[in-house]
Amino acid sequence: MSQLPRFWNQGWSFFLDWWSNPSAVSEQGNPPSGEQQLNNPLLDHREGQMFLTKAFQVILEEVLCKGTNVQEKVCDWREPEELSALLDLELRENGEPEDQLLKRVQDVAKYSVKTNHPRFFNQLFSGVDYHALAGRFLTEALNTSQYTYEVAPVFVLMENEVLSKLRSLVGWTQGDGIFCPGGTVSNMYAMNLARFQAFPEVKTKGMCALPPLAVFASQESHYSVLKAAAFQGIGTEQVFKVKVDNRGCMIPEDLGEKIELAKSQGAVPFFVHATSGTTVKGAFDPLEPIADICEKLGLWMHVDAAWGGSVLLSKEHRHLMRGIERSDSVTWNPHKMMMTGLQCSAFLLKNTTDLLKQCHCADATYLFQQDKFYDVSLDTGDKSIQCGRKVDCLKLWLMWKAIGSKGLEERVDRAFAHVRYLVEEMKKREGFQLIWEPEFVNVCFWFIPPSLRGNENSPDYQDRLSKVAPTIKERMMKQGTMMVGYQPHSGRVNFFRMIVISPQISNQDMTFFLNEIERLGNDL
Amino acid sequence: MSQLPRFWNQGWSFFLDWWSNPSAVSEQGNPPSGEQQLNNPLLDHREGQMFLTKAFQVILEEVLCKGTNVQEKVCDWREPEELSALLDLELRENGEPEDQLLKRVQDVAKYSVKTNHPRFFNQLFSGVDYHALAGRFLTEALNTSQYTYEVAPVFVLMENEVLSKLRSLVGWTQGDGIFCPGGTVSNMYAMNLARFQAFPEVKTKGMCALPPLAVFASQESHYSVLKAAAFQGIGTEQVFKVKVDNRGCMIPEDLGEKIELAKSQGAVPFFVHATSGTTVKGAFDPLEPIADICEKLGLWMHVDAAWGGSVLLSKEHRHLMRGIERSDSVTWNPHKMMMTGLQCSAFLLKNTTDLLKQCHCADATYLFQQDKFYDVSLDTGDKSIQCGRKVDCLKLWLMWKAIGSKGLEERVDRAFAHVRYLVEEMKKREGFQLIWEPEFVNVCFWFIPPSLRGNENSPDYQDRLSKVAPTIKERMMKQGTMMVGYQPHSGRVNFFRMIVISPQISNQDMTFFLNEIERLGNDL
Repeated sequence: MSQLPRFWNQGWSFFLDWWSNPSAVSEQGNPPSGEQQLNNPLLDHREGQMFLTKAFQVILEEVLCKGTNVQEKVCDWREPEELSALLDLELRENGEPEDQLLKRVQDVAKYSVKTNHPRFFNQLFSGVDYHALAGRFLTEALNTSQYTYEVAPVFVLMENEVLSKLRSLVGWTQGDGIFCPGGTVSNMYAMNLARFQAFPEVKTKGMCALPPLAVFASQESHYSVLKAAAFQGIGTEQVFKVKVDNRGCMIPEDLGEKIELAKSQGAVPFFVHATSGTTVKGAFDPLEPIADICEKLGLWMHVDAAWGGSVLLSKEHRHLMRGIERSDSVTWNPHKMMMTGLQCSAFLLKNTTDLLKQCHCADATYLFQQDKFYDVSLDTGDKSIQCGRKVDCLKLWLMWKAIGSKGLEERVDRAFAHVRYLVEEMKKREGFQLIWEPEFVNVCFWFIPPSLRGNENSPDYQDRLSKVAPTIKERMMKQGTMMVGYQPHSGRVNFFRMIVISPQISNQDMTFFLNEIERLGNDL
Repeated sequence: MSQLPRFWNQGWSFFLDWWSNPSAVSEQGNPPSGEQQLNNPLLDHREGQMFLTKAFQVILEEVLCKGTNVQEKVCDWREPEELSALLDLELRENGEPEDQLLKRVQDVAKYSVKTNHPRFFNQLFSGVDYHALAGRFLTEALNTSQYTYEVAPVFVLMENEVLSKLRSLVGWTQGDGIFCPGGTVSNMYAMNLARFQAFPEVKTKGMCALPPLAVFASQESHYSVLKAAAFQGIGTEQVFKVKVDNRGCMIPEDLGEKIELAKSQGAVPFFVHATSGTTVKGAFDPLEPIADICEKLGLWMHVDAAWGGSVLLSKEHRHLMRGIERSDSVTWNPHKMMMTGLQCSAFLLKNTTDLLKQCHCADATYLFQQDKFYDVSLDTGDKSIQCGRKVDCLKLWLMWKAIGSKGLEERVDRAFAHVRYLVEEMKKREGFQLIWEPEFVNVCFWFIPPSLRGNENSPDYQDRLSKVAPTIKERMMKQGTMMVGYQPHSGRVNFFRMIVISPQISNQDMTFFLNEIERLGNDL
């Protein structure tokens, strides 16, 4: 208890005073009725703040204490119909009393998946960082938009600082960038800037004025490259898929061949989308030879490091992205391995000629007045395709201030160490068949139940194997013990993809994971 | 104090017990060092939760108590260089102690603009709703992505319910929809779906396979229509700007003429972008005659009601959007007038043929496995252009549960009532010149300082008038008394645009506003 009292008591005594005597601080009181109504606000701050404080307590208890406790469930699975009934989702004419609303906060927490739980291995995000979470609460409370210095002075400066730090890890001393609502949008920014740089007339005249374009990405690249090509009017057929080697890394020679192929079909190559940390395998494309090709042919080199970017924090592992400084742009999602919480996706740009603004500006006079009394180059709203833009820098900044680059590095290194341990343990156990030696923190494997072992050559083996992962998944979710994803991929039937991120895990969780897969699957 | 104690004390005693004896609840302790490190987590939940609680106290005090108190400043203006130095933004190798981090939380709050303040009239958002804010804190703590029922069971069902409710206010009994990261992206979704419906081949073949397209929007429409046309490869020159009447509303006859013009230039009309609540004037396009034209010609009718959509909550004011049920899609941002907090933008769709999914799907096997043990139509991730998608429904849902449709209606009606009061008061005062009678809650006016009154015909009048608003704005920001925006617009020199939203304001704030403009501008 020694850490608590002083600040703590001071803090609450302030609120207790304020709440018990609101007139001392502000003129607001309870809402009146009738004619005088417009002379008083409709909203009672005191009541609202009390509700918020009680809701905070529920969040702390349900989401953060219970939700991170290994003795509690990762999820409390319900069928959709049952869950609908439990939650009573319907929106009605009349409001509800406070107690009922707090119960709703509790129910939402109870039936939601605990992504902060040490045994949530299901996505490319997991775990909670309390400093980042404090930054997110502060962001929500301040509720501003990132577009002008006028309404977001702190965050305009802070975003610049954070982006500059991320760029320095890429190896750039200057450049530009912006936080985007997710990695797909960051990748879309890259494709749009590349197109604009190659054909500036596209902004006003559209794709009709251009020849067919060609984009290159590996077979293992994220599906956002297809979504971007579709959305931006380039077309998914104009995305040429480059072959990968047996580790899932782009084969540079095939990139060269695909570029020739595109040209022979009358398309104009303009954009190479490399990946650092593919979604399923966690593979890193070889950036140096890709950069050689891009430089030689004058193509924009984008690196989708949404997942893998965080290796740049580690002296031991940043070699995986050797050559990154030669790229033109990078997507890096700190909401994944850096645990800032969704959403936090940085789009980083090497260009220093204000390309983001040139490409995206629409010069709205009501926001970006040129006769403001401060330096209007601080108004970043015309760099984005959005108008209002959520503040995504504070959570990352506060976490970085809290644990420093060293702390972030330690987390990355630990995740790799846990993976090494997990893989060693897997190899000791009969039922686990690793599909690739992990290069990163994705561990892909089949669990082979005793009934299938040694039957690899039987005609129904693949079919039966394909049903193992879904069954184990169903069991673990219904029991709520842990969560891990599976998928069929590149000709292989359903296999598990275990993701190791969170600094709140220990090797005991790795052991638990293996035991639990066995427990759930041994009878299949 | 009578409302506080019971829940309150129960709540904190739980945490005090837990914090003072963590081993009773979970196995986590302080991080060890050396070889044993991997056997213990790196992160200490107890310490983190204490920090978060203290940060919550700072947020409550600085942002929510002080930040909504009329006796405190709306902003504490600093020059960028000074603010940078005050904030010490640099990210370093080592972390910082807790006290310093809490000071940082406080500083970020102190120097940020208080958009929750009753005298923040600067943007199309303002004010705080504590239920929505509790929903936002809960969203952040739960930290999941909206893409599958597997990881977001509560939010998949809740989003459906909230969207269904919003659609019912539009007048649709069925349809589809999705929450997007801001109104611009929602508008982009509309343009993309319309293009795909007219030319499904665009997804695979791109715009090269299509004739030049034509988009129609009024001269007063939001700049996002240009951003969308540029981003999606249609081209800004393919946006035909339709004339408006003196209230700022689209002239349907001119829409007809612009469609003919586009055709004569070889472009194929496919998309009409009407506006309900324009950004500067707050004008509502006449939806019925626009719908007549769209129906007759088979054009997609989108209504950008990002700003104005909330009038649908009011029986008294929803006539402003008469005809909305005839549109094909609607953008509506509850983060504006409904005060849910950024970001909350609904894209609503009348179509029932799964168009969102058809248009945007990329069928990622690692997320959208078809052999899951539940109904995979609940996995909504392929409806979006993003992959990970922030949960934006909870804040709106919880607020709606708290005050009901009636409470929301009352807020909208009150904003109109405050505007009526403000306008009446303005007319009584010599220095205020209303530019248009407000149709909505945007009040656009010039302040004419005594030195300029009666000099309307002097040659430098316009020039001098144009400098009044920027000077008053600079003074109000440097003194921190209030914030309101200004802009030059459609041939008129700088005028103020006062936005009246917040249920926490009173007519006293309206009077203060007028007095303050006079105080700051009378000597100009």
